[in-house]
Amino acid sequence: MTLAEQIIKWKTNKTNVLPSEILMVKPDKIMIHDIFIPFVVEKFYEMGFEKVFDPDRIVIIFDHLVPAAKAEDIRHFKIAHEFIEKQGIKNVHESDGICHQLMHEQGYVKPGDIVFGTDSHTVTYGALGVFSSGLGYTDIASIIGTGETWIKVPETIRIKIDGSLPKGVYAKDVILKIIGDIGADGASYKAIEFVGSTVEAMSISSRLTMSNMVVEAGAKVGLFYPDEKTCRYADVSNDILTKFQLEDSASTIKVLEYKAEEFVPVAAIPSNVDNVKAIKELDEIKVDQVFIGSCTNGRLEDLEVAASILQGKRISKNVKLVVTPASREVYEMAATNGYLETFVKAGAIITHPGCGLCCGRGGGIVGDNEVLVATNNRNFLGRMGSESSKTYLVSPAVAALSAIKGFLTYE
Amino acid sequence: MTLAEQIIKWKTNKTNVLPSEILMVKPDKIMIHDIFIPFVVEKFYEMGFEKVFDPDRIVIIFDHLVPAAKAEDIRHFKIAHEFIEKQGIKNVHESDGICHQLMHEQGYVKPGDIVFGTDSHTVTYGALGVFSSGLGYTDIASIIGTGETWIKVPETIRIKIDGSLPKGVYAKDVILKIIGDIGADGASYKAIEFVGSTVEAMSISSRLTMSNMVVEAGAKVGLFYPDEKTCRYADVSNDILTKFQLEDSASTIKVLEYKAEEFVPVAAIPSNVDNVKAIKELDEIKVDQVFIGSCTNGRLEDLEVAASILQGKRISKNVKLVVTPASREVYEMAATNGYLETFVKAGAIITHPGCGLCCGRGGGIVGDNEVLVATNNRNFLGRMGSESSKTYLVSPAVAALSAIKGFLTYE
Repeated sequence: MTLAEQIIKWKTNKTNVLPSEILMVKPDKIMIHDIFIPFVVEKFYEMGFEKVFDPDRIVIIFDHLVPAAKAEDIRHFKIAHEFIEKQGIKNVHESDGICHQLMHEQGYVKPGDIVFGTDSHTVTYGALGVFSSGLGYTDIASIIGTGETWIKVPETIRIKIDGSLPKGVYAKDVILKIIGDIGADGASYKAIEFVGSTVEAMSISSRLTMSNMVVEAGAKVGLFYPDEKTCRYADVSNDILTKFQLEDSASTIKVLEYKAEEFVPVAAIPSNVDNVKAIKELDEIKVDQVFIGSCTNGRLEDLEVAASILQGKRISKNVKLVVTPASREVYEMAATNGYLETFVKAGAIITHPGCGLCCGRGGGIVGDNEVLVATNNRNFLGRMGSESSKTYLVSPAVAALSAIKGFLTYE
Repeated sequence: MTLAEQIIKWKTNKTNVLPSEILMVKPDKIMIHDIFIPFVVEKFYEMGFEKVFDPDRIVIIFDHLVPAAKAEDIRHFKIAHEFIEKQGIKNVHESDGICHQLMHEQGYVKPGDIVFGTDSHTVTYGALGVFSSGLGYTDIASIIGTGETWIKVPETIRIKIDGSLPKGVYAKDVILKIIGDIGADGASYKAIEFVGSTVEAMSISSRLTMSNMVVEAGAKVGLFYPDEKTCRYADVSNDILTKFQLEDSASTIKVLEYKAEEFVPVAAIPSNVDNVKAIKELDEIKVDQVFIGSCTNGRLEDLEVAASILQGKRISKNVKLVVTPASREVYEMAATNGYLETFVKAGAIITHPGCGLCCGRGGGIVGDNEVLVATNNRNFLGRMGSESSKTYLVSPAVAALSAIKGFLTYE
């Protein structure tokens, strides 16, 4: 069986699980974020529910609208506060960072869990071997009422990467290249599982970057087999590892194989995530703004790479650089390690942990015809400001280098 | 002569200067900020000017719109960029903090200077003995074209404060009390000058807080006689002190005398700055949000006071705390000194140096019926969010204490 099948089998106590089979599951956690909370609450009561099935399985996180940029944003908080109070929900984060960082950083998800959330990048926790995916708010309203939902067991695409990544090439380059190869709908409702020596050598942070972006190829989940690193990060016993083993006999619909040495620094070109090019093949592109942050690349590992490049340097005078740590904990560690000082001395604008610019709500909106080089996961038209702006998605290293040089560069 | 008269006399090379006299002056610096730059530029060219009289006397600062919260904000930056380029202006700050912090922190103003700016809180530099005031954008357009403008020599109100402020009472309490006593139009087009042992003992930062707010009583300028502290801060020789001396014979229209020991922690009550009450006389007021920042109270001294109170504590779970350092330099020092860590551990949202919430453009907008306790200078209806929100203006100490307790408190 594939990892997706192994998790579903374990959680449903079945002896076997087949691709495309429809099964009922009881999610371990349900994540609801500030943007969708009013709609979830409305649907929940409309469906006739009064009490959530289990307040301790629900996590509510304010991240898209923090700090509030519009008076209307407060309506979302108010509705959330009433719901939290009435339902006795204790897992609440009002200004601690991005939901997809907090869910694993704060220990809400564990390897082998099944988790759903109101945001499409809920796939992120696949990095820890969590079967996690985004659902619409009506589905979520139903799940928090009943405690269960149906899923169709996804077919699996296995991606095998072996070898060592070249210097200056990061998980972001790997996942962008893969999305470019698969295409934006190339993995629709499929599970992707990443295997091979390269992904085994990756840090949890790098795996999170990879899983985070599988939805850009349409995947339902993007999974890594848990290993000792996973158990250490998730603070669970290694015993769980016996449950999830790579099986050569697993039935996959496709296996893609990559040699790590062949990856190069890439960018997703405006305005599609799957339009991926090697940066060295592009003409010189002048940059107006750089964004380092998001649930894709706003973790300490990402800030460390960026800080090591920006240390003692000033960004180009024509560039604005916005840095947004993914969480309060990341911010705190970045302060302790001196990264914040490095960034601010380099000329960066540091914004409060949250979604910030990535979802286009304050924090450095991009203007007409401006070029943005960004570490997040979507470069859709007008997402981060003007519809005539252009966004290139890159690794934190490329972002930092481009901020210094004033043009898109990987060196 | 009063300090206002002494400065004007020095700068106009006249032998005498009389209150209400109308004179031409050549400003030493003109500050233009992002909000008004498009209007200044439009008027400038409309008046037939082509070149500014002296690019080195002009300082352009982006602070209200940084980081941009709306795509329209970028238009201001674009117009500014074109003007800066065409006019060869070098004194430009695109994301370094609030104009009224940068003007003195970055050495643009010196004791005895005459300075005008597009923002009403240009009065702040009076703390260094600078005759500085806000003007409309048409006036500013004319000044950057001709290099001069007329002024009417203001009559002077002298405010004498002697003695030691009680523990827990700060410059902010002093200036709020004074504005309460004078009233919002009590000093219209007057110079206020602060004298006495209390203001002599004040740090430059505290004096800046005082001068910053004189415009809330309608004053044209709010001046402190320069002393050795001023010279050290402004990096000028003590020789200048001989030019500006307190004269008992000066013709003032009013002298207000205060005993420092009688000041208490106060708040300006919604929605007038001159509605000032001792906090101990107020009923318990539940707080939804606290803001520490602005050109009034966003300096290192202010953050230090707040950090010393918040050290090792968590803010009330019902409160949002937004901290916005006044400048990049303040942010950097706050990072070095561990204040940022203290704030973020206490649960604060730290936003990038700039005007932020104070001007209601992102960074923690306040919702319907919410109560905001804030260290800035204006509590006008709807300024920082919903028109049904209520803002209490206080010192950084009261702000920090209130964030911990969840209600307005000075202890």
